[in-house]
Amino acid sequence: MKPTTKILLSRGVEEVIGQEELEKGLKSKRKLRVKHGIDPTASELHLGHAVSLRKLRQFQDAGHKAVFLIGDFTAMIGDPSEKESLRKQLTLAQVKKNMKTYLQQAGKIIDLKKAEVVYNSRWLKKLQLADILELLSKFSQSQLTARRDFAKRLKAGLEVAGHEQVYPVMQAYDSVMVKADLELGAYDQRLNMLAGRQLMEKMRMKPQAVLTTPLIEGTDGSKKMSKTSGNYIALEEGPKEMFGKIMSIPDKLMSRYFELLTDIDPIPLKIIKKEPRNAKLFLAKTIVGYLHDQKTATKAMIDFVRTFSEKKSPSDIPVVKIKKRQLPLIDLLVGIGVESKSEARRLIEQRGVRIDGQVKDDPRGRIKIKNNSELRIGKRKFFKLNT
Amino acid sequence: MKPTTKILLSRGVEEVIGQEELEKGLKSKRKLRVKHGIDPTASELHLGHAVSLRKLRQFQDAGHKAVFLIGDFTAMIGDPSEKESLRKQLTLAQVKKNMKTYLQQAGKIIDLKKAEVVYNSRWLKKLQLADILELLSKFSQSQLTARRDFAKRLKAGLEVAGHEQVYPVMQAYDSVMVKADLELGAYDQRLNMLAGRQLMEKMRMKPQAVLTTPLIEGTDGSKKMSKTSGNYIALEEGPKEMFGKIMSIPDKLMSRYFELLTDIDPIPLKIIKKEPRNAKLFLAKTIVGYLHDQKTATKAMIDFVRTFSEKKSPSDIPVVKIKKRQLPLIDLLVGIGVESKSEARRLIEQRGVRIDGQVKDDPRGRIKIKNNSELRIGKRKFFKLNT
Repeated sequence: MKPTTKILLSRGVEEVIGQEELEKGLKSKRKLRVKHGIDPTASELHLGHAVSLRKLRQFQDAGHKAVFLIGDFTAMIGDPSEKESLRKQLTLAQVKKNMKTYLQQAGKIIDLKKAEVVYNSRWLKKLQLADILELLSKFSQSQLTARRDFAKRLKAGLEVAGHEQVYPVMQAYDSVMVKADLELGAYDQRLNMLAGRQLMEKMRMKPQAVLTTPLIEGTDGSKKMSKTSGNYIALEEGPKEMFGKIMSIPDKLMSRYFELLTDIDPIPLKIIKKEPRNAKLFLAKTIVGYLHDQKTATKAMIDFVRTFSEKKSPSDIPVVKIKKRQLPLIDLLVGIGVESKSEARRLIEQRGVRIDGQVKDDPRGRIKIKNNSELRIGKRKFFKLNT
Repeated sequence: MKPTTKILLSRGVEEVIGQEELEKGLKSKRKLRVKHGIDPTASELHLGHAVSLRKLRQFQDAGHKAVFLIGDFTAMIGDPSEKESLRKQLTLAQVKKNMKTYLQQAGKIIDLKKAEVVYNSRWLKKLQLADILELLSKFSQSQLTARRDFAKRLKAGLEVAGHEQVYPVMQAYDSVMVKADLELGAYDQRLNMLAGRQLMEKMRMKPQAVLTTPLIEGTDGSKKMSKTSGNYIALEEGPKEMFGKIMSIPDKLMSRYFELLTDIDPIPLKIIKKEPRNAKLFLAKTIVGYLHDQKTATKAMIDFVRTFSEKKSPSDIPVVKIKKRQLPLIDLLVGIGVESKSEARRLIEQRGVRIDGQVKDDPRGRIKIKNNSELRIGKRKFFKLNT
């Protein structure tokens, strides 16, 4: 089904700049050139990247041209946006290695056959000093330097290096080179994308519109999903692991994940509230479904439910059937409904978890399940474990 | 006579950075590479430039290698140092035109045959984005941007453009390329030259020492000599005009001009105080002497004295003999001892100048000299003009 303009410009959208022009473009018969860039600074893409990639796919489905830009040159510099310290510069070899699987991973979401895939080294590596000074002259110095992320670093006594401010100018030049009608990206790319809009205007081109998507929180439920924070779910994750990780997100994140990572509409807030576990199973199945396939997702769900199936006992102590004889304590807790892995870890570390009366305080511990064991969490929650 | 180390490092010197290393170098038998660069942003060099050029010549006379750098690339960008607004970028054609006479003018002071003349376009135009980012990364952003001159502009609501901060990095790279042991330049070049020192250190070369020379005031006696302020004496000025302009500087500037623009030592402060006019004639003759030649300078002096010879009359009204029948009013005033052209202009504009009782209030006016005319300046100063 072709997404409507309303869906394109509002669902999973933080902000649209240049909306009026963009709407005109969408109304016309013209195929818009929709740019989205990713720097191959790591080897894995994750659900955080999926939010923008899915938006790009929506534009493809609406009949527009996806210009998927691999920042093989910019990756070597490193985008300083929202970074807390100077990024280590990558070598060409590292970047090439990272690039290898990038397309394959992005191809799980966008239609690569219909996309125009470009590498920014093609034009950036050829730029000479005179060209660069010309590009820099299109910006005021304060635009390049008076940035919240830089100010934060300087306040913390950290340095901002002279080359970091050139990053937005390079990304802006990419937009000039691919003649983008629209650039979309996560909210932390706002400044870089606006630089593109400005440069195009100064170079007397039609300035690109800018669409930002929200930054999604990771499995811990608080920090932005990122490799550095270790709270990410990789697009390449195996189905079982991916299913389990999605099941481990805090309930409060569910409606956000539904909005940003699925097409399900209207978002089933009622179900989320009434039957959070079922809603989460549905969420996990949907995401695993498009990142792997429906059959695999169904199998992952059945496996998960089998491992952590839950019944109420007559005395109102829930009886939990555990298929596995041995498993990590954290997985057990998340499986029976603790909000997240980090919450489970907290409970264990605070000595709030007992099995048959014995405190289990090693968050990395595995446990053997004996039939009819009693699991107690905190003061009031009891479970009977059955094998 | 070979200048001593003491003269090299103190006379007409504002500051030496890296003095210890530099003194070691001067003591060794090694020929030091002494860099001095000028951007051909205008067609004329003036006495302001002469201060550094004379210092460079001193190092030549002491047996060192002058590396005279023509900033044909950097001239197109424009050094923002101490500039009150964004410099207009020059075209290549303009720069080439300006360059034409530069060498010839500098050759009036330095020994071009013994100097190494280099043009920075040779290496700067070839730099590519990756090289430039590498160079920029050797500096912190605040080094490039937290500058007094930029702050001043921003405070005045003016813009600093993104490319302006790259200027010191380019000049620094010049130092790397010419392997300078010392860079010398006017005090407003301090930041640029220190950037060279830093870049060399970061690139594991022996960092250049830096020697700054004072900025000399122009003929108005207050502002730094510059083309923009119109208070300059060009190196290419004809001998007569040059002589007259030097005679028009305020007395208080004389000892500074002696120190910075002549080799005369000790500076004849006593004569300056007792016989300012004679001292100024001596100053003018000395400078015209090395920028033209001794014979021409002597002739210029004789002409000047003849035009404005001064005698006291019995009634204590000085009688001034004017050889010319017609001359600009301003020149007449300066010739008889008004401190400077700007002072003369002020007097005329304030209606303080009368000839035979008639107010002369056109600062650009010429006057015809009649025999026995009475010139009155202000309330008390009277002169008899004789032809």
